[in-house]
Amino acid sequence: MTASLTLHVDYVSQPSRSLVFLCRAIKAPHQEKQLSLVKGEHLNKPFADLNPFKKVPAVQDEDLLILESCSALRYIASKYDAAGTWYPADLKTRCKVDEYLDWQHLNTRAHGVGYYMNKVLLPMMKGSAPDMEVVEKHEKELGRVEELFASYFLGDKPFITGNTPTIADLQAATEFEQPQAAGYTLAKATKEYLERVREAVGAEMYDELHEAPKELAKKALQ
Amino acid sequence: MTASLTLHVDYVSQPSRSLVFLCRAIKAPHQEKQLSLVKGEHLNKPFADLNPFKKVPAVQDEDLLILESCSALRYIASKYDAAGTWYPADLKTRCKVDEYLDWQHLNTRAHGVGYYMNKVLLPMMKGSAPDMEVVEKHEKELGRVEELFASYFLGDKPFITGNTPTIADLQAATEFEQPQAAGYTLAKATKEYLERVREAVGAEMYDELHEAPKELAKKALQ
Repeated sequence: MTASLTLHVDYVSQPSRSLVFLCRAIKAPHQEKQLSLVKGEHLNKPFADLNPFKKVPAVQDEDLLILESCSALRYIASKYDAAGTWYPADLKTRCKVDEYLDWQHLNTRAHGVGYYMNKVLLPMMKGSAPDMEVVEKHEKELGRVEELFASYFLGDKPFITGNTPTIADLQAATEFEQPQAAGYTLAKATKEYLERVREAVGAEMYDELHEAPKELAKKALQ
Repeated sequence: MTASLTLHVDYVSQPSRSLVFLCRAIKAPHQEKQLSLVKGEHLNKPFADLNPFKKVPAVQDEDLLILESCSALRYIASKYDAAGTWYPADLKTRCKVDEYLDWQHLNTRAHGVGYYMNKVLLPMMKGSAPDMEVVEKHEKELGRVEELFASYFLGDKPFITGNTPTIADLQAATEFEQPQAAGYTLAKATKEYLERVREAVGAEMYDELHEAPKELAKKALQ
């Protein structure tokens, strides 16, 4: 039987990887439909008809279409995580997961995407050198993001809400890996955090899915 | 007895208004602590010690601090909305509320803030004319945002998830009101939608809380 849960993903995309990590970690029956951002497959039919935002990831479950990755992570964890650890039901813990997911849009994500996009993807697509002024702006902001992440969100805990990783950690890790794949030097605390998430998810799978942004950056920056 | 729930707000801030609307609508016992963004009270002690992001709104409930408005809306509705209509427990409906809340950060919010900030707040603080190139960039993006909002999020429904408003509608309405207060012309469909939210929340309270951004814009643009 075909699983009802379908993920439209490209491993080059940070939240695409988060969704795959979650589904595999909780063994949610699902199928992956691969799409190439570099080939522009997100901009053309049939995907563009499904998704007016023309972005990956996109998720379908029965008649439900979900076009935002944080919403999809919440939904999938709520429905398929029998142990209930990835999006805990406890109101205060859940609120802390949400708080990171809400914060990251204009912080980790905005500048992780900004750095990678301007250093790797745009120069590749345009065949020109990166606009280093823009790259450096994102680099500086990423430093601020790392500091707030370490001091406010982590504190002295291994993961955002304590000793167990949640969907917030998946979004954080995949985002921090992205600029690092393109040459950004992460702080020691961030690197140690990523190592904890890698172990929690499974090092082999973690590395396998992070090959895509690394390979692309290598090609672009050689 | 003092309520445990404290909202640090300035009605000039869109999500500050959303939180006040919600608390009043569900009659959550709460206290409001007013702060002036124009006077820079969010940047100084004692507030800056409480909130390392130095932004309003910030919410406290017992020992819980919440620095992101969407997270605070979810938490307050989950805890204090006895009827459960503002953040419905049904998984698919909840996912659609989340989807709008996740989308708006880089869309309605980014460009609503961008338009108002560059047309009203920055010129006021700097004592200079607005950078109209930046204002027009946000104006154009707001047009795109209105179109996607009408076609994807609303469709032919009165509110984002159907016949009843949710916390997603509060965030949408307060954001769309912001550029309008500074002279942006909303599409007819958006105006009709705002009127529905206004009626649902209570026209008098809606108008009372929207005085602040309107008054400030009037002062700046006169």
